[in-house]
Amino acid sequence: MATDGKVVEPEFVHPKKAFGWAARDPSGVLSPFNFSRRETGEKDVAFKVLYCGICHSDLHMARSEWGNSIYPLVPGHELVGVVTEVGSKVEKFKVGDKVGVGYMVDSCRSCQNCDDDLENYCPQYTVTGGGKYRDGTVTYGGYSDSMVADEHFVIRIPDSLPLDVAGPLLCAGITVYSPLRYYGLDKAGMNIGVVGLGGLGHMAVKFAKALGANVTVISTSPNKEKEAIEHLGANSFLISRDPDQMRAAIDSLDGIIDTVSASHPILPLVSILKSHGKLVMVGGVSKPLELPVSSLLRGRKLVAGSVIGGIKETQEMIDFAAKHDVKPEIEIVPIDYINTAMERLVKADVKYRFVIDIGNTLKHSS
Amino acid sequence: MATDGKVVEPEFVHPKKAFGWAARDPSGVLSPFNFSRRETGEKDVAFKVLYCGICHSDLHMARSEWGNSIYPLVPGHELVGVVTEVGSKVEKFKVGDKVGVGYMVDSCRSCQNCDDDLENYCPQYTVTGGGKYRDGTVTYGGYSDSMVADEHFVIRIPDSLPLDVAGPLLCAGITVYSPLRYYGLDKAGMNIGVVGLGGLGHMAVKFAKALGANVTVISTSPNKEKEAIEHLGANSFLISRDPDQMRAAIDSLDGIIDTVSASHPILPLVSILKSHGKLVMVGGVSKPLELPVSSLLRGRKLVAGSVIGGIKETQEMIDFAAKHDVKPEIEIVPIDYINTAMERLVKADVKYRFVIDIGNTLKHSS
Repeated sequence: MATDGKVVEPEFVHPKKAFGWAARDPSGVLSPFNFSRRETGEKDVAFKVLYCGICHSDLHMARSEWGNSIYPLVPGHELVGVVTEVGSKVEKFKVGDKVGVGYMVDSCRSCQNCDDDLENYCPQYTVTGGGKYRDGTVTYGGYSDSMVADEHFVIRIPDSLPLDVAGPLLCAGITVYSPLRYYGLDKAGMNIGVVGLGGLGHMAVKFAKALGANVTVISTSPNKEKEAIEHLGANSFLISRDPDQMRAAIDSLDGIIDTVSASHPILPLVSILKSHGKLVMVGGVSKPLELPVSSLLRGRKLVAGSVIGGIKETQEMIDFAAKHDVKPEIEIVPIDYINTAMERLVKADVKYRFVIDIGNTLKHSS
Repeated sequence: MATDGKVVEPEFVHPKKAFGWAARDPSGVLSPFNFSRRETGEKDVAFKVLYCGICHSDLHMARSEWGNSIYPLVPGHELVGVVTEVGSKVEKFKVGDKVGVGYMVDSCRSCQNCDDDLENYCPQYTVTGGGKYRDGTVTYGGYSDSMVADEHFVIRIPDSLPLDVAGPLLCAGITVYSPLRYYGLDKAGMNIGVVGLGGLGHMAVKFAKALGANVTVISTSPNKEKEAIEHLGANSFLISRDPDQMRAAIDSLDGIIDTVSASHPILPLVSILKSHGKLVMVGGVSKPLELPVSSLLRGRKLVAGSVIGGIKETQEMIDFAAKHDVKPEIEIVPIDYINTAMERLVKADVKYRFVIDIGNTLKHSS
């Protein structure tokens, strides 16, 4: 950061020392990194990070695949830990509380979406890692030993929810929970499809099941059937490339959560919706897909999008998860495994979410 | 029609003589045609047709542009007139009542959509002209002197609504009214866009205005601005091909009714929706359009379809139209002008709906 013409090293921008792992360039390779965090302000909560989930978008950010990354970049927006300090005006949290932070650490706080508890649709929200605070300083994410954030953006982790599984709920969880609620796909007995069985998809199966749905996993990979049904509890499995199976499923689903971010045909998905059914995309497909308009008309169907969720709904989601025992399937890894984990993520070689054991493995000497 | 190996001429299939104009082949040219209608059954309403609107789909059907037309084909599904006979079990109508029939004359009456008053989404509904009744006989539409239909599919025309303008409400009207209601685009003060200013579009402007919206017409034709604002009452006008105008309109609309059936880009339309905005397609676009998934995600927007409306809602719509003085703009033509009218329709040379004066111009001698 440049001040008065001088570049201030990340270590000295703020008063509090912090340590994490950062990507330095679009290779995305992460390595140990000294930086700093702000003093705990009067509305701030500071916490020691114990776990942080690895989201696919961490990889996009580390490699600047969206073209706008600022280096050094500390990813991580599924971080949980224990409160170490609270500001004088903090009302909701105290030292020792279990808390977490998701995709956002700030928003404009004054637009209609912010007023409506939909900070995730505020055009000016601040991402947790690799963004910029309003004062122009860089945000560093959860692959680090500590965090400080305005209490408005801090989520309370219920005591009954183990901390290691709580992290992925803060991004993957809310990303699928929010559209199930908003689009009315949360009624018991509904037939809900889930396309793609990765970090998002497996959470969608679990939340839809917890809401009382009959869940059909739709996948290109026949070898996921056993896992989907026996392990994750899906009721049925459809191979999207099998025309006979897809034909037999026409007009059968009330809604579909589509988690796939690669280009893919949506006509077959629209076709297996009942009339008035809803196909909700939550994967960031970058290229336009083919929209079958006449199929939408004939059945009054819709194709919609949704990204993460607001802070209030994130708290509701995590309380729901604790109550209904909805937990992501995780593989806990040490911080020095992070580059290997990223490589495995590229190959979708994880069931279903990596979580970094920050508390036990992130050491200044690493 | 073949019975016992013999072809029965349309005149002799049913006991009641009827006369209209029919297309004989995919040229779509219409000419006088003698046929017959069934006896008035116990649940049937028979009526003398006085007016019939010309819908663009009449043209598609007459020319077999959807590839499934049965000839001779009598088009017309915006027909209104006066009841001449009612069956013994008819409860809602009596001789002399003003009535109309829209796009459907039957449906399965037993599926979920039929149970929910959404006969228009019944997979087995019977179109008014050019379809087949359950007994296999052909349906003939409203370009004819008489009609008979089950009372369930007959709409009462309020006394305060002139019969000549009532017809187009039964298809064009309900096609735009239903999605405004279903998708919640019916709240006073909303900003509603209407794409395309033809038969459907001009009705969308009028219904949205009557519901209290600020209406923006979005068109490729700058020369429609004066008409849209001064005559139809739209609040503003956007030229969709003008990037500056479209940029200035970003994030401004709660919903859009898109009536265009030609291929067109929808990204600019999605862009001018506010977050949580809804783009509803009611034009039967035959080729897939490009769906901008990431734009849907960022603002939790949706693209949806809708076709006509159920019978109950059609009655509600026409009562609303009568109460709020919502009337289509029509050009009344004699039946022997029909082929010229069809040619003008191809060129979109009508403001905004042709209505055939059946009562005064359809003569056996014509």
